[in-house]
Amino acid sequence: MELSHIEHIGIAVKSLEDAIPYYENVLGLKCYAIEEVKDQKVRTAFFKVGQTKLELLESTDPEGPIGKFIEKKGEGMHHIAFAVSSLEDRLKEVEKMGVRLIDQQPRKGAEGLDIAFLHPKSTFGVLTELCEDKNK
Amino acid sequence: MELSHIEHIGIAVKSLEDAIPYYENVLGLKCYAIEEVKDQKVRTAFFKVGQTKLELLESTDPEGPIGKFIEKKGEGMHHIAFAVSSLEDRLKEVEKMGVRLIDQQPRKGAEGLDIAFLHPKSTFGVLTELCEDKNK
Repeated sequence: MELSHIEHIGIAVKSLEDAIPYYENVLGLKCYAIEEVKDQKVRTAFFKVGQTKLELLESTDPEGPIGKFIEKKGEGMHHIAFAVSSLEDRLKEVEKMGVRLIDQQPRKGAEGLDIAFLHPKSTFGVLTELCEDKNK
Repeated sequence: MELSHIEHIGIAVKSLEDAIPYYENVLGLKCYAIEEVKDQKVRTAFFKVGQTKLELLESTDPEGPIGKFIEKKGEGMHHIAFAVSSLEDRLKEVEKMGVRLIDQQPRKGAEGLDIAFLHPKSTFGVLTELCEDKNK
């Protein structure tokens, strides 16, 4: 597998409205988009730092994945997403190597990317997303 | 504050020897250095993905910060480190804005960088490191 860069870091927050001013005023980043991903029961806010985006994730439903994560672990880093090409092939490749997949097939994530998650039990505790930008 | 890029992501693992083969064989990254940081009671292994390093952290002491983190939360993402210039000035600046500092003054971290941590209570749960490479 060849990872070109870290596409984004997903960060779980209780409230985008509370967290965005910290990222903008203290860290000096600019929130360039807010998007709801209904499928994942989240609202997301995006910032860019060099090659990598920070994706703040606010749950829209306590039973959604981010709602449950915050209840269990509190706010904080949630996942890391690596940019890949030929995502479907990459999933087959890592599955053959014994990695447990959360998504057997790519699905649509925020910003129109094709995404798939690897299970943290296979990745030493790091919820890992692979993503491909087919619009590029 | 101006953040040029994400310098590294710190990831807590129980064992470097167990985790490194996953990063090398599955993700296709190359471990280019292993370093002990006695002050922090860790052994670290470094990989590079685009602009950003992944820093695996193995505790050398159950009472050290990574040992305690793993006991409480398990393996996983531990901190995010942003590259800055004039780190001392940045610390004064964010403290004036009400951010709680873990390190009042820069100290030496892995790879000879000057580093300082911001407290996760002030950063919406994300243990945040600012670092400056004065060798550049």
